[in-house]
Amino acid sequence: MSDDVLDRLFSFLSQYISLDIKEIEVLTKLDLIRKYEKGESILRMGEMTQESYFLLQGLVRSYYLIKGEEHITEFYEELAGWTPQCAVNGKASDYFIDCLEPSFVLVSTPDISEDFFKEHPKFEKLCRILSDKWMADQNRSFDNYKNSSPEDRYRQLVEMKPGLVQRVPQYQLASYLGIKPESLSRIRKRISEGRS
Amino acid sequence: MSDDVLDRLFSFLSQYISLDIKEIEVLTKLDLIRKYEKGESILRMGEMTQESYFLLQGLVRSYYLIKGEEHITEFYEELAGWTPQCAVNGKASDYFIDCLEPSFVLVSTPDISEDFFKEHPKFEKLCRILSDKWMADQNRSFDNYKNSSPEDRYRQLVEMKPGLVQRVPQYQLASYLGIKPESLSRIRKRISEGRS
Repeated sequence: MSDDVLDRLFSFLSQYISLDIKEIEVLTKLDLIRKYEKGESILRMGEMTQESYFLLQGLVRSYYLIKGEEHITEFYEELAGWTPQCAVNGKASDYFIDCLEPSFVLVSTPDISEDFFKEHPKFEKLCRILSDKWMADQNRSFDNYKNSSPEDRYRQLVEMKPGLVQRVPQYQLASYLGIKPESLSRIRKRISEGRS
Repeated sequence: MSDDVLDRLFSFLSQYISLDIKEIEVLTKLDLIRKYEKGESILRMGEMTQESYFLLQGLVRSYYLIKGEEHITEFYEELAGWTPQCAVNGKASDYFIDCLEPSFVLVSTPDISEDFFKEHPKFEKLCRILSDKWMADQNRSFDNYKNSSPEDRYRQLVEMKPGLVQRVPQYQLASYLGIKPESLSRIRKRISEGRS
């Protein structure tokens, strides 16, 4: 495992809680970080998992396959965490999660969390606080999506996730925004010409 | 405080964790349940709060006011919990939360939670698990909204929240579904006539 990736984890955690040498050792030994290649699946439609994910490096998307067409519902950038719906509702996943770039993902399960949190309750508190934060972020994205025109959705995306626009092909951004690639081209052209 | 409402809380909690007499006493004494009248605001645009909410009885909505028009983004039914975006991002709220029916809401703050969880760590675990569940539910609603036609959105709403359709005026349901009231009338007529 790359030390860079572990460093990124510890540096993220230490923004919220103090970490001692013992805790760093325990976390390192737990060996929770998985490497995925570009294009590799984390979860496929029809599969089930109990895993939760926290992206340390790379870029991940979730998408549905509807009438043979990909409908992208989320991009996860570094330091985003999520639990797939199937891990909560116990049904097979009706969407895919895969990696758009080589990615390092911290993977945990309820069993691992339970044991670890019992010994280190401050991590449970941190996970609760992060869940609230991610839920509020998601809530904001949903509200923005509902209340905005496609052009405003694109502007908000550029504002909230400026790096994403550089890293993701246009047709995938269009899918995420719920518009046709041609419409996204027109929107980008209008914005670059300062016409709106 | 109505005993019914407290009973509802304890019966909900005991689905997840065992509760002893001492814990029931402590929770009761904390006096966290607030009563709201029909139409009363929980949070107004421009205000800030650190509070999180868990609805024990009643019906709550959140909405934006855009060009003088209400855009409803969420309905909370009994046993739903949420933390407003402003409590997480520290900015003034850009939306309203108010009660469509007389409501009893459990209200907590980071200070109250911190003290209580320190003494009763199993409640922290429960809150983390519930946050994950509510985040997955919200994630599912967002995915459905993005991937569906207005008619399918309405069908999913009837399936997922059958009681809501009876309790909420049509124009508010239409706002939540992102369509005009006339379009919702047409959809309901088509469905009731079995035409789709």
